[in-house]
Amino acid sequence: MTLPTLGLVGLGKIARDQHIPAIAATGLFQLAAVVSPDGASTDGVPTFRSQAEMLAALPGLDAVALCTPPAVRHGLTVEALRAGKHVLIEKPPAATLSELHDLVAEAETARRTLFTAWHSQFNPAVEETKRRLAEADIRSVAITWKEDVRRWHPGQDWIFAAGGFGVFDPGINALSILTDILPAPVFVRAAELHAPANRDTPIAATLEMSAAPGSRIGRVTADFDFLQQGEQTWSIVIETEDGRLDLTHGGTRLTVDGVPVLAEPDTEYQRIYRHFHRLIGDGASDVDARPLSLVADACMVGRWHRTDAFDW
Amino acid sequence: MTLPTLGLVGLGKIARDQHIPAIAATGLFQLAAVVSPDGASTDGVPTFRSQAEMLAALPGLDAVALCTPPAVRHGLTVEALRAGKHVLIEKPPAATLSELHDLVAEAETARRTLFTAWHSQFNPAVEETKRRLAEADIRSVAITWKEDVRRWHPGQDWIFAAGGFGVFDPGINALSILTDILPAPVFVRAAELHAPANRDTPIAATLEMSAAPGSRIGRVTADFDFLQQGEQTWSIVIETEDGRLDLTHGGTRLTVDGVPVLAEPDTEYQRIYRHFHRLIGDGASDVDARPLSLVADACMVGRWHRTDAFDW
Repeated sequence: MTLPTLGLVGLGKIARDQHIPAIAATGLFQLAAVVSPDGASTDGVPTFRSQAEMLAALPGLDAVALCTPPAVRHGLTVEALRAGKHVLIEKPPAATLSELHDLVAEAETARRTLFTAWHSQFNPAVEETKRRLAEADIRSVAITWKEDVRRWHPGQDWIFAAGGFGVFDPGINALSILTDILPAPVFVRAAELHAPANRDTPIAATLEMSAAPGSRIGRVTADFDFLQQGEQTWSIVIETEDGRLDLTHGGTRLTVDGVPVLAEPDTEYQRIYRHFHRLIGDGASDVDARPLSLVADACMVGRWHRTDAFDW
Repeated sequence: MTLPTLGLVGLGKIARDQHIPAIAATGLFQLAAVVSPDGASTDGVPTFRSQAEMLAALPGLDAVALCTPPAVRHGLTVEALRAGKHVLIEKPPAATLSELHDLVAEAETARRTLFTAWHSQFNPAVEETKRRLAEADIRSVAITWKEDVRRWHPGQDWIFAAGGFGVFDPGINALSILTDILPAPVFVRAAELHAPANRDTPIAATLEMSAAPGSRIGRVTADFDFLQQGEQTWSIVIETEDGRLDLTHGGTRLTVDGVPVLAEPDTEYQRIYRHFHRLIGDGASDVDARPLSLVADACMVGRWHRTDAFDW
């Protein structure tokens, strides 16, 4: 049996650190090509300068995985879907919500799989937290997502350019966990957004959220910071009537009332490629717009502040 | 035959200038109550201090129309739908997209009509423009929406508070026309947002938009200004391969290559109440999230600037 063939578009850090190893480890796709505008390549795989060149050269290609910055994902996804390819998109799946809703329509027209891969959702600890919260009375949820941008995104100027998401680039991972684990939707009621004087996107942000009246969800807050020194924090603390859940290390570890429940190694991307393979087999798509909607909502209802200039 | 009864929630300028006259002129609803937190009233109609009081006092009420500021619309709509009422919401229908998507789910669960009334869409000139653009090659669309906030929103501080939309409060009317008349979706590619030093929402904004590759739509721009002196401008100029369309006066007049085609009196709100009545009869809803999505997208991908303080 031959494996479905996949082209990887964008050969940056996330592609090399996560996608290529996960494709190899799961063995469900044959990595048939990579696209890299600067001509970078990976061992033994044909390299193209643009997705269009790859699609022209390999008409039998089955799927593409997009690991480019978000600003160009809409155009590339439309191009790939119209060429008959299934598409996996790294998070965030598009620069705007209008673009994302359009991609849903394009995928339906093309009758191809579209999968918006929010990688942080693909952790056993997230799944277990969701199960425990399904019937819970939730007093509060506090997201703390603080990392050093110089360490995790060194020199990536696009992240601070308009449309680059800034601190929401990691923060949206926390929001993708939040929308996944909560039994009812929450809404941004207020936000404070701090953008460096010489950049266009926030370097820090706080969000106040709450659910609709009558839900069993209390106050939900998020604290995002891109200038965290020392210990890096990616944690969600949930207080329920029955105890406290600590979902830490980016959603990979769960502690309940101080007792470790799950601490699995990070296999998010292997789960992502298994899910993508299954979606293609089922002729289905999986598009989750909620995390992106929360970011857009925060930018719309939030108060924008100017803070110190940022340089690498 | 008795008319369906309607409660009007919020008794501000738009309710007095438009809703009450349109309800009277169309004769399709009986105005059974108004809700006004400050106790204001209108001739011969029972007044309540809150929607909850009205719903408790008038259990047989059929529908409500919400004319409050957008920040409280989500909670009031949920309350009204859960009480079994059909709901018409003034534009913009919610403070955030997450809220609006939740209202769609609430209306489906309640099996009641939800109608997001984008009033500018209810003009014969808009309908005629849409018809003419359906098969057109559109070179460019230029929105110019410039008005004096002191004249049209005197003292309405909520419009400049976080979540109050600022210049997008009128601007979203233009965007609601845009999404209605164009044969394909457009996306915000860039935006410049100017917020007064002492306020939270933009007082001026420009948007650059374009459609997906392969569409017959060229450059789409919007220029919103809240400090326009002298002549007030609410116009959309569309250049096509076959000529130029000028949709002016807020979408009420259409000129094609300089020749007036339609210039009907403003009957937007009568059309709105006829449509609401028809939706209820059909057991249908009409929710259009696209204009709100374009605003949220602009706030997310746009560059925020600080400008002079604004005072009334």
